[in-house]
This record gives sequence, structure tokens and C-alpha cells, in this order.
Amino acid sequence: MPAGSVMKQALQSYIDRFNARDVEGMVALYAADASIEDPVGKPPLQGSAAIREFYQSAMVSNATLRLSAPIRGTQGDCAAMAFEIRIPLPQGEHILHAIDVMSFNQAGLVTAMRAYWDPDDMG
Amino acid sequence: MPAGSVMKQALQSYIDRFNARDVEGMVALYAADASIEDPVGKPPLQGSAAIREFYQSAMVSNATLRLSAPIRGTQGDCAAMAFEIRIPLPQGEHILHAIDVMSFNQAGLVTAMRAYWDPDDMG
Repeated sequence: MPAGSVMKQALQSYIDRFNARDVEGMVALYAADASIEDPVGKPPLQGSAAIREFYQSAMVSNATLRLSAPIRGTQGDCAAMAFEIRIPLPQGEHILHAIDVMSFNQAGLVTAMRAYWDPDDMG
Repeated sequence: MPAGSVMKQALQSYIDRFNARDVEGMVALYAADASIEDPVGKPPLQGSAAIREFYQSAMVSNATLRLSAPIRGTQGDCAAMAFEIRIPLPQGEHILHAIDVMSFNQAGLVTAMRAYWDPDDMG
């Protein structure tokens, strides 16, 4: 089991690297065969190439991420965080909310990311 | 798949019924054979009798729950929320943070609750 502090640091790095538009840094948080289900209910994508493409697309926007509450570790193999996606638009900032849950391997790499939000909430 | 709105309403009821000390209302949110893993990493407890006992114990405190961010539904069979547990103490209010993820059956009842927090954070 990875330490809670290792998992929490990885989630903080996720926020920081997204905001820094550090695609390779994001990919490096994941195991090579990791999966992303974003949002939950959508068929997962899998593997480093698909993950790289996912963040390349996501980072084209001017969105920035900000934690809504402290990152939560566990004494299991996963951690979670609630955060805001802040998108500057001509008519003002648009704020979306999401909760991500990540599972980790022994090496402290993310093996699965699941993002909880509903496209119906996006109005 | 239960509708996202049904799952989100159930999570709001969870907050409201906890704060109202409505043990039977909490038990009624769960399927009869549901499991609770609180925190994640601890052996789950299962079934209505164990769930009733869990909330009876939890509600002995003066704690109240408050959402940290909007409840997130999904187009899958689960929903999530980040919330604060506010505990009044002689030296002032103590605030713990948690993220709960709940899975639902077709009838809109919770089949599994997993609470993400680390006892190490509570120190």
C-alpha cells in the first residue's frame, strides 16, 4: 500500500501540473497501463498514449483547477479530492465542480482515475 | 441505472438526516445488504443491523455535516460528495473533511458507501 502522504502529494501534483500545462508531468503520475474514466459512466480510456492525448486536449482551454477542500488520503490504496474547474469566458468565469478518485500501485503511480460529475450539471 | 437526480437527492438526504439525528431515515437510504467502508481501507461492515448501529454511534456526538462543494452525480451508478464534519468542542469547533462515494441499485438505494479520509489526518 502506498503511504497516504505519497498519494496526497500525487493529487496535489495533479492540480499543480494541470495549471502549469505540464502534459508530460501529468502522464508521469500514471502507471503505463492506467485507465481514466472521466466522467464515471463513460467507457474508460487506457494507457499512456491515450492519457497524454486526454490532457493535451484538456489543457487547450484556459481552465485552471483549484481544490474545494483538503485532499483526502486513505489507509487503503486510493485517495480523493474535490476541486473546481475555473474557465474564463467573455461573459465571466464559469466554474464546474468535480470529485476525482485515484487508485495507486505499490510504486505510488496512479492505476485508475475516476471523475465524478454529470454532464447534465454543466447546463 | 438510477437517474443522477435520484442519487444526488439521496446524498442530500444523507446530510439532512444525519443532522436531524434520523437513524431510521439513514438506514432507509441503504439496500438491506449494503456495505459501508468508513474509512476506505478498513474492513467493511454490512447489512441493515450493522448500518443502524454505525449511525447510532456516529450520532451520539454533536457533529453536524455540511457540504464543501456541490454533490456530484454521474451517468453511471454512483455519486459523490465532499463535506465537513463539524464537531463542537470546549476549545472551539473542530472540522474534519471527508469525501463519500456511494453506489446505487436500480431502485435508487445505496448498495455501498466508501468514505475517503485518513485517520492520520485527524491528529
